[in-house]
Amino acid sequence: MSQHTPWPTMAVSVEDDPARRKTVGMLAFPRLTLLDLFGPHAVLTGIMQTHLVWKAKGPILSDTGVSVLPDMSFDEAPERFDILFVPGGPGQASLFNDPEVMAFLAHHGARADWVTSVCTGAMILGAAGLLDGYRAATHWAGRDVLRLFGADPVAERVVIDRNRITGGGVTAGVDFGLTLLKKIYGSEVAETTQLLMEYDPAPPINAGSVDKARPEISERAMEILAPVAQITLDALSERFS
Amino acid sequence: MSQHTPWPTMAVSVEDDPARRKTVGMLAFPRLTLLDLFGPHAVLTGIMQTHLVWKAKGPILSDTGVSVLPDMSFDEAPERFDILFVPGGPGQASLFNDPEVMAFLAHHGARADWVTSVCTGAMILGAAGLLDGYRAATHWAGRDVLRLFGADPVAERVVIDRNRITGGGVTAGVDFGLTLLKKIYGSEVAETTQLLMEYDPAPPINAGSVDKARPEISERAMEILAPVAQITLDALSERFS
Repeated sequence: MSQHTPWPTMAVSVEDDPARRKTVGMLAFPRLTLLDLFGPHAVLTGIMQTHLVWKAKGPILSDTGVSVLPDMSFDEAPERFDILFVPGGPGQASLFNDPEVMAFLAHHGARADWVTSVCTGAMILGAAGLLDGYRAATHWAGRDVLRLFGADPVAERVVIDRNRITGGGVTAGVDFGLTLLKKIYGSEVAETTQLLMEYDPAPPINAGSVDKARPEISERAMEILAPVAQITLDALSERFS
Repeated sequence: MSQHTPWPTMAVSVEDDPARRKTVGMLAFPRLTLLDLFGPHAVLTGIMQTHLVWKAKGPILSDTGVSVLPDMSFDEAPERFDILFVPGGPGQASLFNDPEVMAFLAHHGARADWVTSVCTGAMILGAAGLLDGYRAATHWAGRDVLRLFGADPVAERVVIDRNRITGGGVTAGVDFGLTLLKKIYGSEVAETTQLLMEYDPAPPINAGSVDKARPEISERAMEILAPVAQITLDALSERFS
């Protein structure tokens, strides 16, 4: 009896040889929003070769204090990934003016088949020059910021524009991941993954978008987001000054 | 400009003093399913004090090879948590016959205000004697197993029975988390959290449950799950022999 069977994988139905599976480079930066990363990761990792990539492989502290270990440094990255993926998070402000990160993203964004993000990861793609002239989704509170990078922000859950696929805030990562699977491998692979993850959402309340939330809930959420929004805008004004 | 602002938190609206916030002990075991843990974690951590608890604090390898660092060992755990939470994952088979883990869960299950799980975490609660006589949800493929522990498996997304709250497979963790928030703090806190996470799900396909999936998709999913199901049953037959 093996103790080493991983979570059921569909990889063999797609590509038997692990070395030939599609590769996903997922940017794992300090103070990222953990679920922005691990929603898509859970969807994609059974089928593709996912890598958490950062400058170095030491532990990075996420937004909530949980530490995660990247498995690949920038230096170890291949010449290209099939998919480049960028999550969001409060730490994004430190990236906008970081030449090493911007160069890494610009390099891989120009070479990947698909350039993707969830939540405010779209701002990071934008800062690296990868959304100029593209329609894109992002967290509802961050849409206007995307215009600074020449992007056209859209109030949709997942947006596909040529080879860019961007998702809305945090929990949109699962919808994004399934959209990408369907696009690459067809509906059967995406449906099987959805069933394995029992993705049959049933929110016990109904305030998941600004359109649906009561006005006092939206106001409270904006208050809570204000400090992160301010840090983001400060970093961007430094960049554009 | 602070570089240390965490992801926007609602904690201050609930309890200003971090030391008085409700505590959540989240079992973090080798080869757990990462999203089982980080869905609920993302919902709860802004408001409560969450801890990833395991025998020791060294890195644990999840089902997909991503390493996570627990922040609390069993020895460091307080006498009780307000909420005990257990995720599922292929590594569960190693826990059923592990007296240290079973004793830890039995101790905390008897003391927590809420005893909770997502996905096949319900089997682990069951093995620790914590679901005997309770209605419970779990991953669709694992429902029958719950009967071994005297539980009554239910095909619902989230089940509340007295102080037990159990969620269905993997992605049910966000619905579970919001249900718990609503129960403890009321709808406004849950709604604000839902909006912050933009939890307005829009699956691009419709195969999230056995009822909704096409028969060939369910068959394929069962095939993929077979090795993990076998390991689980082998471990349980050892236990019940």
